[in-house]
Amino acid sequence: MHIRPDAVSDKRLASTPPPPYIAVIFTNTQNDEGLEGYGQTAGDMVRLAHEQDGFLGYESAHDRDGTGITISYWRDELSIKTWKQQADHMAAQRSGREKWYRSYITRIAHVDRDYAFENK
Amino acid sequence: MHIRPDAVSDKRLASTPPPPYIAVIFTNTQNDEGLEGYGQTAGDMVRLAHEQDGFLGYESAHDRDGTGITISYWRDELSIKTWKQQADHMAAQRSGREKWYRSYITRIAHVDRDYAFENK
Repeated sequence: MHIRPDAVSDKRLASTPPPPYIAVIFTNTQNDEGLEGYGQTAGDMVRLAHEQDGFLGYESAHDRDGTGITISYWRDELSIKTWKQQADHMAAQRSGREKWYRSYITRIAHVDRDYAFENK
Repeated sequence: MHIRPDAVSDKRLASTPPPPYIAVIFTNTQNDEGLEGYGQTAGDMVRLAHEQDGFLGYESAHDRDGTGITISYWRDELSIKTWKQQADHMAAQRSGREKWYRSYITRIAHVDRDYAFENK
């Protein structure tokens, strides 16, 4: 049945409020050299994001071929700007460029409508 | 080094042109009952999307925990509308609801800026 995203019970999907809100789409490919420290930092960043004002949720999937997609959802541009400049997050971004990622693209996108479905 | 998304060489990331363009963010969780026919249909849909006017690219990752994220990028609202109503795609959406997905959320979002990085 079709429902609101914030009525989806599965916690792997983000329970976002009605639009408008902003999506930060982070797609990446990992280095072949290994991911020492990545899991710890990724977990720390998820916990830290949850503490930020304006954070609405996040969704993440990592493919066996080394492709990763993480989408975080935010209330407004100010909350994104604050998160981008948060000190621990800036250090994690630097480690990502230096150690973990072969390539990545970050896209800032304004969500204006959404549809959800859940099998009952 | 920081580059334009359309200069990223890794084909797992979408070589999108400069914004504005539109992202269709499709996040889902799979049924536990199995995915008979899913791989064939998913491949067919990727090939079909590439033939649509206004299609700019797509990115996809499927996690071992059953979370899937697929993002397709489009030139404008008309190209999204046409794709949504394409007959074979409509049949695939129906199969997804009936057979493959436990839950999903589709979000339509207007990309207004992007940043890319590639290790050289």
